[in-house]
Amino acid sequence: MRTILLIGAGKSTSYLLQYLLRNAEKEQLHILVGDKDPNNAIELLNNHPLSTAIKLDIFNEQQRVNAIKKADLVISMLPARFHIQVAKDCLAYGKNMVTASYVSPDMEQLDSQVKNKGLIFLNEIGVDPGIDHMSAMKVIDEIRSKGGKMLMFESSTGGLVAPESDTNLWNYKFTWNPRNVVVAGQGGTAKFIQEGKFKYIPYHRLFRRTEFIDIENYGKFEVYANRDSLKYRNAYGLKDTLTLFRGTIRRVGFSKAWDMFVQLGLTDDSYTLDNSERMTYREFINTFLPYSPTDSVELKLRHYLKIDQDDIMWGKLTELDLFNQQKTIGIVNATPAQALQKILEEKWTLDKDDKDMIVMYHKFGYELEGNNHQIDSSMVAIGKDTKYTAMAKTVGLPLGIAALKILNKQITTTGVIIPILKNVYQPILEELENHDIIFKEKEVPYIGYNPLKDARTI
Amino acid sequence: MRTILLIGAGKSTSYLLQYLLRNAEKEQLHILVGDKDPNNAIELLNNHPLSTAIKLDIFNEQQRVNAIKKADLVISMLPARFHIQVAKDCLAYGKNMVTASYVSPDMEQLDSQVKNKGLIFLNEIGVDPGIDHMSAMKVIDEIRSKGGKMLMFESSTGGLVAPESDTNLWNYKFTWNPRNVVVAGQGGTAKFIQEGKFKYIPYHRLFRRTEFIDIENYGKFEVYANRDSLKYRNAYGLKDTLTLFRGTIRRVGFSKAWDMFVQLGLTDDSYTLDNSERMTYREFINTFLPYSPTDSVELKLRHYLKIDQDDIMWGKLTELDLFNQQKTIGIVNATPAQALQKILEEKWTLDKDDKDMIVMYHKFGYELEGNNHQIDSSMVAIGKDTKYTAMAKTVGLPLGIAALKILNKQITTTGVIIPILKNVYQPILEELENHDIIFKEKEVPYIGYNPLKDARTI
Repeated sequence: MRTILLIGAGKSTSYLLQYLLRNAEKEQLHILVGDKDPNNAIELLNNHPLSTAIKLDIFNEQQRVNAIKKADLVISMLPARFHIQVAKDCLAYGKNMVTASYVSPDMEQLDSQVKNKGLIFLNEIGVDPGIDHMSAMKVIDEIRSKGGKMLMFESSTGGLVAPESDTNLWNYKFTWNPRNVVVAGQGGTAKFIQEGKFKYIPYHRLFRRTEFIDIENYGKFEVYANRDSLKYRNAYGLKDTLTLFRGTIRRVGFSKAWDMFVQLGLTDDSYTLDNSERMTYREFINTFLPYSPTDSVELKLRHYLKIDQDDIMWGKLTELDLFNQQKTIGIVNATPAQALQKILEEKWTLDKDDKDMIVMYHKFGYELEGNNHQIDSSMVAIGKDTKYTAMAKTVGLPLGIAALKILNKQITTTGVIIPILKNVYQPILEELENHDIIFKEKEVPYIGYNPLKDARTI
Repeated sequence: MRTILLIGAGKSTSYLLQYLLRNAEKEQLHILVGDKDPNNAIELLNNHPLSTAIKLDIFNEQQRVNAIKKADLVISMLPARFHIQVAKDCLAYGKNMVTASYVSPDMEQLDSQVKNKGLIFLNEIGVDPGIDHMSAMKVIDEIRSKGGKMLMFESSTGGLVAPESDTNLWNYKFTWNPRNVVVAGQGGTAKFIQEGKFKYIPYHRLFRRTEFIDIENYGKFEVYANRDSLKYRNAYGLKDTLTLFRGTIRRVGFSKAWDMFVQLGLTDDSYTLDNSERMTYREFINTFLPYSPTDSVELKLRHYLKIDQDDIMWGKLTELDLFNQQKTIGIVNATPAQALQKILEEKWTLDKDDKDMIVMYHKFGYELEGNNHQIDSSMVAIGKDTKYTAMAKTVGLPLGIAALKILNKQITTTGVIIPILKNVYQPILEELENHDIIFKEKEVPYIGYNPLKDARTI
């Protein structure tokens, strides 16, 4: 028997645990789940004979070390900032480790020690980061093995509501942490490269500079730029690639509407509102509009944002009940972003029967024997319900598959790594296909940004 | 003989030193000026028999203490963050002190010790802060002494170019630290109160929410909101005043044009540009526009900002030579704000014969015996040349006058203070009038924001 210790059993572990339990007998696994509140784990494990749920407070060293000692491999689903403590114990007691989080500088520093002990700390093996790395590097490696030279790489992901549950004018519901959606794009200017030139988009313009993509059977989507598109430039070996862009996918029209909130100042998270607790929704909106003794909040807003009477933008706002005079924010010392989140959660929370959807889209431009080519690669995953979500599936399955492949020595690259090497991503991608996480790749005419190579303008 | 020690003899000390030297014989003063580079002081003192210039490095404790011990009063014109060291020595050796800077928390903490020693540390006695405090509190105190109740207080100041030197489409030149102009409004949302309601303006809207003012003989100006209009709410005793607003004055049209820079992202100071040193002005602008193989930077910008062909906004941009393909930024690792400053300084620096102008405008709304009233109070100061500027005059004279009044015991209020008490501001304002720094006060019909007291809308 091999013991896999899963630390942190939140909402997103449904598919991961299902996968591990289904493989437990065949693979001779014991699934040990530790959480400071083990109730969710107990429910998900459902008395499976090869599983145990324990109470585990990761700040209790004794509890933590005891659990890690018992394991052959540790999956940490804790909030990212807590991984490092688990990692240090895994290093001390010689255990492999898997996480879905970005490699922190602290984690990075352990690399040589992890290698020296012959261990694998595999990070960024969820959906984004995770499946994006693997599916992109697969195509990039194929292009290179043919002798192609990368000209362009664009990669976008979105967590959305599935078409069958898409019931509001925004074509959007919260399928993950609402706060991340409300403050998305803040904290730095979006930066990317087009045809060899750096491009910057300030936050207050971010949602007005979208690109469009088309996905067969799913229609049109739009993409706004992520903060740093250059993050994996070196890791992917794209130092000389002329165009590098990473983005977030939304349904068409979302960004233009979201920009209304940005323009008003509703997404600001840097200060607190006076008297936010008893402030009505209407007062909240009015706080960002000039005073008038005669004009309504509605008209002031329409004038301020130049919204015509018959503009669908207006419908999007009223659908949110934004001008309600009774409902209050009800949060002490709320920032505008927190107040907005409260209002949006009322309308954008998934219903019990709603399904979510993960969409990923890559574009690879390359040159081969003097000709330019392009491959587009896309993946759509639809959730089953609000427990077995597409998000939980695309985060959990790569984690579970990677854990098993490491246990079974099918993945052997040591150190603090992310899944960008072929011998890591290939076996995982292959098994993901069995679970309907499939990338459709197609050759398309190369568009790039300068097909004529015409440098008349800069 | 009484010795006044002036520490820091930068550009803005011309009027201050002139004032002190002119009064030296009559008032039996010795003017001791210390600076780490005393050349500017030597030039300004011009061998006046009652003056001495010395080399003073304020980080050299021996030098600093020696100079302070010799003084009867110390005027610190150092950058604000260095005052505290001088203040501690003044406290130790029992010397009064005067500065034109905001009271720092460190300085504030000395208050009880300063009081215990019977000393006066008078701060914020330049133009803004300084003359604004005094001229505002004079009217507020008069209103209160009549039994009036303050309803509204708005106060704005601007450092501008004088009408006779106003030669560009922006009606603006740098008359003070250019960097402060380029990053003005950043670092926090503008916050003020209108008719009892808090109002917030995010940075990217700040320059689109201006108000207009008219000054007799000088025409129309516009005002954009300062970051925190509530700073002196308690100090001025305006806790219950319905409308509180502080702003910055510009010529009409400046803000709408400046907003183009904000919208593009050119004023961002939070990251550095790739290859800024060799970047041309044209490349700098293009960095904030979408890539196109065919369209010019000019057309992309016009389209992005929706500028018509015949719009004066366009003339304002081309006047700055913004699309020049030869001129380079020439600064290593420049932020966008630093690059923009470089471009603006080329066009907006005062010529040798140019004059600057300081404009201040207050509105006081109040209720007296059931009726609403309003007093507007304004002041305009014009510089003589680029050395004897209006800025140097309005900063330096209040400092010099205050220093003399303290030496002569006409100002006796002890502690760490700002000039908001009548026995402090009155003698200073009276003498400022002899130097043509005069506020014109006039009764006007009360406008307020809700003259009908009609609360139909919020």
